[in-house]
Amino acid sequence: MSGISLEELQLATRNHGMPLEALRYDVTPVGLHYLLIHYDIPAVDPDAWTLTIGGRVASPLRLTLDGLRARPAVELTATMECAGNGRARLDPRPVSQPWLNEAVGTARWRGVALADLLAEASPLDDAVEIVFTGLDRGVEKELEQEFQRSLALADAADAVLAYEMNGAPLAPQHGFPLRLVVPGWYGMTNVKWLRAIELVDRPFDGFQQAAAYRFRVDEDDEGTPLTRMAPRALMLPPGIPEFFTRARTLRHGEVELTGRAWSGHAPIAGVEVSADGGLAWSEADLGDDAGRWAWRSWRHTWHPRAPGEYVLCARARDEAGNVQPVDAAWNVGGYSNNSVQRIPVTVTE
Amino acid sequence: MSGISLEELQLATRNHGMPLEALRYDVTPVGLHYLLIHYDIPAVDPDAWTLTIGGRVASPLRLTLDGLRARPAVELTATMECAGNGRARLDPRPVSQPWLNEAVGTARWRGVALADLLAEASPLDDAVEIVFTGLDRGVEKELEQEFQRSLALADAADAVLAYEMNGAPLAPQHGFPLRLVVPGWYGMTNVKWLRAIELVDRPFDGFQQAAAYRFRVDEDDEGTPLTRMAPRALMLPPGIPEFFTRARTLRHGEVELTGRAWSGHAPIAGVEVSADGGLAWSEADLGDDAGRWAWRSWRHTWHPRAPGEYVLCARARDEAGNVQPVDAAWNVGGYSNNSVQRIPVTVTE
Repeated sequence: MSGISLEELQLATRNHGMPLEALRYDVTPVGLHYLLIHYDIPAVDPDAWTLTIGGRVASPLRLTLDGLRARPAVELTATMECAGNGRARLDPRPVSQPWLNEAVGTARWRGVALADLLAEASPLDDAVEIVFTGLDRGVEKELEQEFQRSLALADAADAVLAYEMNGAPLAPQHGFPLRLVVPGWYGMTNVKWLRAIELVDRPFDGFQQAAAYRFRVDEDDEGTPLTRMAPRALMLPPGIPEFFTRARTLRHGEVELTGRAWSGHAPIAGVEVSADGGLAWSEADLGDDAGRWAWRSWRHTWHPRAPGEYVLCARARDEAGNVQPVDAAWNVGGYSNNSVQRIPVTVTE
Repeated sequence: MSGISLEELQLATRNHGMPLEALRYDVTPVGLHYLLIHYDIPAVDPDAWTLTIGGRVASPLRLTLDGLRARPAVELTATMECAGNGRARLDPRPVSQPWLNEAVGTARWRGVALADLLAEASPLDDAVEIVFTGLDRGVEKELEQEFQRSLALADAADAVLAYEMNGAPLAPQHGFPLRLVVPGWYGMTNVKWLRAIELVDRPFDGFQQAAAYRFRVDEDDEGTPLTRMAPRALMLPPGIPEFFTRARTLRHGEVELTGRAWSGHAPIAGVEVSADGGLAWSEADLGDDAGRWAWRSWRHTWHPRAPGEYVLCARARDEAGNVQPVDAAWNVGGYSNNSVQRIPVTVTE
């Protein structure tokens, strides 16, 4: 790997992944869930804050936080992953937030179903997309902007406007007072610090939609938009780490390997484990289904034949037939790199 | 800056600093407080967990979490900073967790005064130090170890064994169910996931005391131990950021510059601000004193004379006469680099 630049380091010291030992939790504790913030975390006065719903609707709405909390609530447990997870493993490395494979987390969200509010606003017949605008403001490619993303009306059925995470009001860094949660989609879809929802009669061409978050094979490629999370399995690294190298050591004997797997496209169909870097694979046991949008736990008992060096891997496949690749394809933005995780371990006497 | 290595990046993606816009909070919300975890976050069953107090004491103790919660409680608000904060700004860069200047946070801790428990255990006359052992286990310099640090009895007067942070039980990553808090001292002192306290009759020579966390001018230097936090002021970066470079832009006009300052040695005596990279300095206004161990807020109104490029700086001094240097001295471990923060900004028309 060529050296990480100061710019990448600045992003890595403020954003953070989920330490992989946190794979042990069904729901990721606040502060361990991954976090990617494009600009700055805005300061929001919840008493002055409102959400507007407008554009191509018959009945525009302006809602307060109390007004949203007074409506029927929905809850869902959802795994969320950054579209750039795995980026720093690509060669050459696309420069942006340099994730290895830890940009993930699972949260219990509570809020209002987006569909209910849209029904009340009555989209006009020509409405095709919904544009979500956050209060976070910054510059990208010389363009001053608020963070904005859109979603086709047909993709909004499961979306929630969440005011709680894991039973508490949203933390500032997770979008207080309100954020969008679109289960199964990559993180950038889930606009934080929401201030406006606008229905539009043509595809939105804002920066985060038309320029960023596209899968492009080369600089001339117009690309295709990133949408749902590709399947991925992660393993809780067994044994104990060396502080600096994170190299793992464990005693010879039976080892219970555990982890989680998810896919935004379809339920997880299976997870396989390898102890030789991906040559031979064994089927892992899946845990209980924790809901369509939550990661699936898995476990596999490994009997290392002798002390020595091993490379542990896990790979997921989903019911739509998507299989996690040993090496995913390179792309310009470094998105959706779900190449199989590799954990070198030393088994001692 | 030479490129950050894979090993440093692995640390940077799991540990994280406080995004500097969080300087706006008196108490740092959970998830924004900086975090440095040497090994893995241990899984602790609070019902099975106990704390032992032993060694050179007349009355050894074994305490449960309920037992600790039933005792008289103390609260304190304390600013905590990693001893390695600023490391990645040194040249050549000592390799370890590559902090720029964000490894800080302020929390409201609640727990039991260490002095009360020590009084109950009755240290013997020959006890000179207290050794704190955490449940976190790993390898450093080929040595398998639990994280352990010691404190001289004379330095323990203000220490708290905390079971709450910001009004809630400790999060796993902050030491659940119990951690040591020694206000004014660098972060490594504040042992997390405490399982044992042992009084000893000679100075402790464990790895984290004798090998790590020492200020050494070269490899042959035995060094001196890191103890209390050197003074530092940080400024909330004004304006809006560019996503990748974090370069700041703000509109021409009056600008309210704000930030925080702290020192583990003595109360903050003053903060100065510069808009020209440290040539000319103006005295900032200090906010209310929030307690001896909490950072002090400060503010200064800046009138940029014209649109253009500026470099904003702030520096702190304390009542013991310690002044934050523009350029701190290099050292082997990259500790205690409190060189003045520099924020380049572009003021537009």
